[in-house]
Amino acid sequence: MAKVNENFLKLRAGYLFPEIGRRVRAYKQKNPETDIISFGIGDVTQPLAPAVIEAMKKAVDEMSRPETFRGYDDSGIGYEFLRNAVNDNDYKARGVQLDIDEIFISDGAKCDTGNMQEIFSSANVIAVTDPVYPVYVDTNVMAGRAGPANHNGQYENIIYMPCTAENNFVPAVPDQKADLIYLCYPNNPTGAVAAKEQLKEWVEYARRNKAVILFDAAYEAFISETDIPHSIYEIEGAKEVAIEFRSFSKTAGFTGVRCAFSVIPKSLKAYTEDGKDVALNPIWNRRHCTKFNGVSYITQRAAEAVYSPQGRQQCQDIINIYMNNAKLIREKLSALGYRIYGGVNAPYIWLKTPNNLTSWEFFDLLLTKASVVGTPGAGFGPSGEGYFRLTAFGTPENTQKALQRIAALQT
Amino acid sequence: MAKVNENFLKLRAGYLFPEIGRRVRAYKQKNPETDIISFGIGDVTQPLAPAVIEAMKKAVDEMSRPETFRGYDDSGIGYEFLRNAVNDNDYKARGVQLDIDEIFISDGAKCDTGNMQEIFSSANVIAVTDPVYPVYVDTNVMAGRAGPANHNGQYENIIYMPCTAENNFVPAVPDQKADLIYLCYPNNPTGAVAAKEQLKEWVEYARRNKAVILFDAAYEAFISETDIPHSIYEIEGAKEVAIEFRSFSKTAGFTGVRCAFSVIPKSLKAYTEDGKDVALNPIWNRRHCTKFNGVSYITQRAAEAVYSPQGRQQCQDIINIYMNNAKLIREKLSALGYRIYGGVNAPYIWLKTPNNLTSWEFFDLLLTKASVVGTPGAGFGPSGEGYFRLTAFGTPENTQKALQRIAALQT
Repeated sequence: MAKVNENFLKLRAGYLFPEIGRRVRAYKQKNPETDIISFGIGDVTQPLAPAVIEAMKKAVDEMSRPETFRGYDDSGIGYEFLRNAVNDNDYKARGVQLDIDEIFISDGAKCDTGNMQEIFSSANVIAVTDPVYPVYVDTNVMAGRAGPANHNGQYENIIYMPCTAENNFVPAVPDQKADLIYLCYPNNPTGAVAAKEQLKEWVEYARRNKAVILFDAAYEAFISETDIPHSIYEIEGAKEVAIEFRSFSKTAGFTGVRCAFSVIPKSLKAYTEDGKDVALNPIWNRRHCTKFNGVSYITQRAAEAVYSPQGRQQCQDIINIYMNNAKLIREKLSALGYRIYGGVNAPYIWLKTPNNLTSWEFFDLLLTKASVVGTPGAGFGPSGEGYFRLTAFGTPENTQKALQRIAALQT
Repeated sequence: MAKVNENFLKLRAGYLFPEIGRRVRAYKQKNPETDIISFGIGDVTQPLAPAVIEAMKKAVDEMSRPETFRGYDDSGIGYEFLRNAVNDNDYKARGVQLDIDEIFISDGAKCDTGNMQEIFSSANVIAVTDPVYPVYVDTNVMAGRAGPANHNGQYENIIYMPCTAENNFVPAVPDQKADLIYLCYPNNPTGAVAAKEQLKEWVEYARRNKAVILFDAAYEAFISETDIPHSIYEIEGAKEVAIEFRSFSKTAGFTGVRCAFSVIPKSLKAYTEDGKDVALNPIWNRRHCTKFNGVSYITQRAAEAVYSPQGRQQCQDIINIYMNNAKLIREKLSALGYRIYGGVNAPYIWLKTPNNLTSWEFFDLLLTKASVVGTPGAGFGPSGEGYFRLTAFGTPENTQKALQRIAALQT
């Protein structure tokens, strides 16, 4: 008798974004004429950079000729041309020394942050921020690390670290011993960043407890202030205790192209039940090469082009468009009396809902009265209740229009 | 303290293909002038079909303009244009009725066959053929279903079903009760196919035991004989007990493009410990949407083009090139006195090694004396010992040349 993985039955409700999708579709069906502006799912709107388009066309051409056709990516972990580009631009340029075999090209940071827990025992205690990107939690529920859910939708075996305005949305290290800690800075959903000193405390905590930090830096390209670390490896000793996740999705508009990477330093260790240390780089390599078969050659050439001089400039220009949106949202909503966080080093604006509305009430209000879709903070955890996420990824025109509609709500 | 998933430490040796790669690189390093012909990893050599190239270029163009740019694939399981094309061409046309929500687009059959076990409890007993595609076994080892390995490299908790010339490489249903059964037909590595009657026995076994069949049909496009089923759903009742895996990798030369799909019928069930049945389609949907973020839009358009009238014809022409290679290998090696299997409905030729050589001995002989790379049967399991896999995926020129070199070995 085939037995189901009953951990799946412990998952709470639908995954956040499908639930938003369902509500939006229901509203559209009743109001087919309405022009809905979506700041919900955090998807980009600007087309790919010309340098990326050019690289893809060239790669497609190569795939049409026998002498340049490419089949499997033999290494399994990404073409060297791309791993070298990542290493040189994202790490060496910031003083971080990595070997290219510590860089694993993948098809998404969602996949990587979701899959990475597999190489760890189900007995580990995980710690996450609250609010949190749901993938970190849900994938641990599926793997049996979470235990039962309580009335809040939180799981008994997970350590939740509340992030609120009081701690600037960066948690202090906990008193309990966590084995695996998920941190995301610049943060989704709050738009907060962690200062060097704060990350240093976390690295020290991890070293003290032989813990591993799973550091999601998918939004590092949006950092505008000079003193904010882009990589956790800018912190001394982090290579012994941290895995880093990066993505081209927001950096270069690859949400529909699919490319990302993870860094698993060779000096990173986990431990057997009897205390023997085990290097995680070869374990992840084995996992990656067994359950994954590489990223499209065309996509890898596209990602490489993100690092060319033209590609860098063009992608930066696109990021500037989004960060101008963020500035506009911050300024206009602040002027309307909203309490606003984030949006300076991140493409997310986190706002306090007005009039003590719950975050789903505010979602429904914005949807039905302004035809604007955002993301309810409660979808990211109980500490997100009373907050709401807007993304800066709209077009400038739609951002303007949405802000006008929100302003009109108040009159 | 971060604890490692110790199941990874139970994995035997390196994954087969990296090991082949290492030996080939070592040989190349010593003999840099040698022109090695690879029939090892089963990778394709013909460039993409013109219809596919055209579709990709059009899709790349769309990604360059704001009005046609595509970000996330919202459904999470594949664009409807592709799921409809799959449904109409691969299923409806063969009399199989599916709903498009039963079709999940992914980036590879390796990923799907590797990941699917996650939705099942770790308490399930799995059954595999011997020889077997290593991914089925290794991913179950990682998940803790395999137990310790014995001296043969087989795992104590897995049921192995020997496939030899005696049973035409299709196992009879076992006396034991297996919960999850991996079957692959047309078979990798043996090139064997399962007749309708044989699959019927398996479907009946699964229905009797409430088991689930994981049916890998990645090579169905190579079936040339009319009475061989292309889908397990051609067998009555299979939709209640089987998951099917398909891939564009070999059908359309997508090994470097990455696209595949799985079918999880809505009537397929697994069971909780206390005997309640649970539909697997929504469970896999949840898994897919949580740990995966869709396939590149460009790739999905490329896959759609495989089903256009021109695409179908062009892909068939390419398959014919490979199947001509297969015919040539069968004929020439038979004439040289080799015992040959497969290669009629599959792109793999399975041969008995001469002179009682072990399969790695024959590998080293072919590599060092003929500069031809194949795959040692023992790499697929103990019953593969004394056998050797050649693929039909070389160019016709290389196939000819390799056969001449093998012929020269004997003189």
